[in-house]
Amino acid sequence: MKLPAEELKKRLALACRILGTEGHDDLNLGHVSTRAPDRQDLMYMKGRGLCLSEIQQEDLVTIDFEYKKIDGSRNPHGELPIHIEIYKRREDVNCVVHTHPLYATAFSATGQELRPVNNEGVMFANPLPNFDLVTDLVVTPALGQSLAEKLGDEKAIFLKNHGIVVVGGSVEEATVRAHLLEKTIKTLFVARVLGEPRWTGEEEAEQKAQRIFTGPKINAMWESLVRQLEQREAPLRILRSLEDRLTRKT
Amino acid sequence: MKLPAEELKKRLALACRILGTEGHDDLNLGHVSTRAPDRQDLMYMKGRGLCLSEIQQEDLVTIDFEYKKIDGSRNPHGELPIHIEIYKRREDVNCVVHTHPLYATAFSATGQELRPVNNEGVMFANPLPNFDLVTDLVVTPALGQSLAEKLGDEKAIFLKNHGIVVVGGSVEEATVRAHLLEKTIKTLFVARVLGEPRWTGEEEAEQKAQRIFTGPKINAMWESLVRQLEQREAPLRILRSLEDRLTRKT
Amino acid sequence: MKLPAEELKKRLALACRILGTEGHDDLNLGHVSTRAPDRQDLMYMKGRGLCLSEIQQEDLVTIDFEYKKIDGSRNPHGELPIHIEIYKRREDVNCVVHTHPLYATAFSATGQELRPVNNEGVMFANPLPNFDLVTDLVVTPALGQSLAEKLGDEKAIFLKNHGIVVVGGSVEEATVRAHLLEKTIKTLFVARVLGEPRWTGEEEAEQKAQRIFTGPKINAMWESLVRQLEQREAPLRILRSLEDRLTRKT
Amino acid sequence: MKLPAEELKKRLALACRILGTEGHDDLNLGHVSTRAPDRQDLMYMKGRGLCLSEIQQEDLVTIDFEYKKIDGSRNPHGELPIHIEIYKRREDVNCVVHTHPLYATAFSATGQELRPVNNEGVMFANPLPNFDLVTDLVVTPALGQSLAEKLGDEKAIFLKNHGIVVVGGSVEEATVRAHLLEKTIKTLFVARVLGEPRWTGEEEAEQKAQRIFTGPKINAMWESLVRQLEQREAPLRILRSLEDRLTRKT
Repeated sequence: MKLPAEELKKRLALACRILGTEGHDDLNLGHVSTRAPDRQDLMYMKGRGLCLSEIQQEDLVTIDFEYKKIDGSRNPHGELPIHIEIYKRREDVNCVVHTHPLYATAFSATGQELRPVNNEGVMFANPLPNFDLVTDLVVTPALGQSLAEKLGDEKAIFLKNHGIVVVGGSVEEATVRAHLLEKTIKTLFVARVLGEPRWTGEEEAEQKAQRIFTGPKINAMWESLVRQLEQREAPLRILRSLEDRLTRKT
Repeated sequence: MKLPAEELKKRLALACRILGTEGHDDLNLGHVSTRAPDRQDLMYMKGRGLCLSEIQQEDLVTIDFEYKKIDGSRNPHGELPIHIEIYKRREDVNCVVHTHPLYATAFSATGQELRPVNNEGVMFANPLPNFDLVTDLVVTPALGQSLAEKLGDEKAIFLKNHGIVVVGGSVEEATVRAHLLEKTIKTLFVARVLGEPRWTGEEEAEQKAQRIFTGPKINAMWESLVRQLEQREAPLRILRSLEDRLTRKT
Repeated sequence: MKLPAEELKKRLALACRILGTEGHDDLNLGHVSTRAPDRQDLMYMKGRGLCLSEIQQEDLVTIDFEYKKIDGSRNPHGELPIHIEIYKRREDVNCVVHTHPLYATAFSATGQELRPVNNEGVMFANPLPNFDLVTDLVVTPALGQSLAEKLGDEKAIFLKNHGIVVVGGSVEEATVRAHLLEKTIKTLFVARVLGEPRWTGEEEAEQKAQRIFTGPKINAMWESLVRQLEQREAPLRILRSLEDRLTRKT
Repeated sequence: MKLPAEELKKRLALACRILGTEGHDDLNLGHVSTRAPDRQDLMYMKGRGLCLSEIQQEDLVTIDFEYKKIDGSRNPHGELPIHIEIYKRREDVNCVVHTHPLYATAFSATGQELRPVNNEGVMFANPLPNFDLVTDLVVTPALGQSLAEKLGDEKAIFLKNHGIVVVGGSVEEATVRAHLLEKTIKTLFVARVLGEPRWTGEEEAEQKAQRIFTGPKINAMWESLVRQLEQREAPLRILRSLEDRLTRKT
């Protein structure tokens, strides 16, 4: 059941704004993409120049897996290879998030294995890989391939001294995962100060993950993120519309 | 002196929004319930799907202690047993809060005993129990019974790698307790970084708790939380009503 | 040069709202007072029941140093002795702040001596005393006297597992001091995580304090706090007035 | 390609408000200056008395390098020597920022060398100098010269127990650098709690810095900061204009 392209782009723009306003904004850096609904070798992706929190549908670009821009008025980000090489290697992946959120980026510097400290931790109980071949940007197809290989079949990967890449079968899934990855590391940060954390064991983590993070539940979490975004965006939207209305009257 | 059902539901919705906007929101997870005023074996509870911060009176469901939904358009949360089994075991309890706030959830992972580091700490001077039979969701009556048993006569319990359950004789009491439990652990978090905390001793803690946290004072704290919620909710409420008014005029 | 009573009360209400919205709010707890301009044995003080952030001029009460309420519709706080006994002992003090801000309250639990880690730290370079006779509320004249004695000639004192008391020659001075005491401990909190802090030495601290924290400069800082408060309060104030205006028209 | 004076002043005011609302505000302390476009020995600088977050173009003063005020209604800050002595020694510098942000100020107390923990860290991979001759304000030309000398050819310098000085070839560059210096230390703060950070090596840091922080990319980051400032300032600006319009009508 493929979504129409316009609906998919609308969700991709929402994902950018959700992540951007939930702690993933880093000036104009970071990007999210989604595979096109009708072609396996094409993606829509945030264009260059804006913050994640600013992205509207018209700020997206369309790129094919030969690295050619097909559509869109903005320039593409230099880290295209992260997205393209993962899509090529992982047929199950339809959305790739690459951002630099505070807690996960700091965690990437420690080289530790992430273990499940709270509910969302169980989603990443299978220790996430670390990409430390370089700490520089991933701007060549070769580096993108190395990263994709290191990611393997996992949901996310830490980029040493750089940030995270999170993938999912849909925009909704990758966004919720990226949000919860940052949140679980924030909880770990607090736990590290308070004492010595205990973890959820492997077996229980798997069972717990299957209970909490099934498809419909992930979608309900996404819907929560969308509604919370609307709450944050509404005041300025309404004020601008009031201003506009009153100005025109005068 | 029982409250009318409508008034009680109104307070339950306020409790959800207070906690949700004071650090207890975790997407659409977490729930609060209150025992019905006219039947000991019935409760009103936040329905599934929304964030705590979004709950209005119409989002509540009515559930009897046979786990049957009596009223309400939303589905119930899967963790009903937390609420029902505590109400069954504790006649003094009329409100149950289950949430995943940052500091208390991180603390639950450490397995430590909480000791009184500041004023509100004395409310929990009797070391709170830890539930570590599972870290998974509490979705069966048997698990709910184990949790209720472990809670014993206490005001709250930590759920390892999961969150907290806080109870009270009224919506007001449980809400204030949940708010202050999170706040005292936040203070502990800061104290742990600054140095080696000293504690209030057992005897003084009891006397101090009786001075600060009597019924009328808890109610005055609840009133403060309600007024602060109104301050946070007012801007968007007013903006939406202005927008509505001006749109209709045009 | 004494201020008229009304002007003084206006400043006291501002001080309450400044501190309340700058991290000193703790539900309806905490209080600020100022000595009356025309009588040495009288004070105006925040009344009971509201948050610091809510206080308007009409929420103040007038209390004499025999602990008798002279004026005001609200009840007085139980911790009157903190204020009265300090005013009795310290003729130079015309304003007393007692609050429970996060960082300073956590610091009070550690029993450490505060040393100057940044600019505002030099204001408290003379190590501040710790009051640890009790951690309970200071509700008797005898406890108030002990606290006043322990405060001695200092600007502030830590109350173990409880909070802080800060004094000044004016509302402006005590407010700025309370604000900067919390801020310097927040900086210390960060420094403790980053490494081993170095301190400003005694002699330099004194000289630096005389340069930065003279009377006129303290007043300019107070003015900054007042303007920032107005920025925070303006949106809701304007929205309520717009709503009021448009409602009346209809 | 020199900017007209008015355009330059507009950017300087924006820089003040960006930094002031991004964590560099410290009451009315801290200042930013820029070299005049038509004379090497003249600068525009934030005037005294206001917070960085409040600065409009008319709040700037013009000062020559003989320490004489040429223009502007406000008084100059006492720390003029920081700016003047750096401009005298560094022809490449056209903007000087001096502020007391939380993380960088705390770091200045530790005396550590900053190493690259994340993307922006590579901008400061060449260890930044520490100025610890005094921790007091830099209010004499002699101290300003010592500071300028210690700064050498670097982008920024830590002032022990005091704050930071950051320089750049343009307002845009110095502002982005100051913003990212604070941000990288915030990431280090989190990393220190989470574990033992690994760093980007010298050679890779240099290459990475050249990739991410070229002139056009710095300018795009500046533009992001300007747009985000507009988002923060818009609500109150619009509300005040609505209030004004409706008041005049009545």
